Amino acid sequence: MKNEFNFVGEIKTPYTDITQCPRNISADGPTCTITIYPEFTKECFGLVKKQKIMVLYWLDSEEKHKAKRPADCPQLLGAFSLRTPHRPNPIGVAVLDIVMVDVKKGIIMVNGLDCLNGTRVIDIKPAIMQEKTL
Amino acid sequence: MKNEFNFVGEIKTPYTDITQCPRNISADGPTCTITIYPEFTKECFGLVKKQKIMVLYWLDSEEKHKAKRPADCPQLLGAFSLRTPHRPNPIGVAVLDIVMVDVKKGIIMVNGLDCLNGTRVIDIKPAIMQEKTL
Repeated sequence: MKNEFNFVGEIKTPYTDITQCPRNISADGPTCTITIYPEFTKECFGLVKKQKIMVLYWLDSEEKHKAKRPADCPQLLGAFSLRTPHRPNPIGVAVLDIVMVDVKKGIIMVNGLDCLNGTRVIDIKPAIMQEKTL
Repeated sequence: MKNEFNFVGEIKTPYTDITQCPRNISADGPTCTITIYPEFTKECFGLVKKQKIMVLYWLDSEEKHKAKRPADCPQLLGAFSLRTPHRPNPIGVAVLDIVMVDVKKGIIMVNGLDCLNGTRVIDIKPAIMQEKTL
């Protein structure tokens, strides 16, 4: 059963090849720029510098995950128990602080995203940290 | 620019009408059952009871968000600065503890999801809480 979604923007990172991407997000990493497409810039109203946001992005992985048994693990692991990009739906989720935002232009800068240059954005949400909720 | 994704399962909750849904996720809420579709059950291998997972689900909202100014707010707010279900892509994200899991049957039970009965699941990930990463 399939469904469709819209890409709402793109991420500029220093990584042009998957081997260059760091394994994790790090606040010490290089600054990355999220550019929201013109039809969605109005959705940025209200975003502010230093706010923590959750970014959902499409990892564009062609490779399908095969359940495997890592060397240090006694059991098979499926994609739902791993952070692998090879998933039934290759969606990445990152929680980051806004370093700079221009809501009118739809430009959001964050530090240390781990994805390829040109990665497309699916959603941005405020990352509300509360009991059992994010 | 559109893209396709697969639904990987469905959520059983007590809520059959949007007016019944609580405004937030709560660990004290009723137990909800996530049933993974047969072709994806193998992706559950490795999930364990009490593990914290991130669930991505499709909110099926037909309504598009219009930037609006809440009564207590001096400025317009777009969907990216709100947790509203009316988004360019109505994807909900919840972080929850696994109450019970049967990896072979693809059944995962969690407490207190806030979505409608029959809501379809897009992804499940381990919710790794670490610096700037989730």
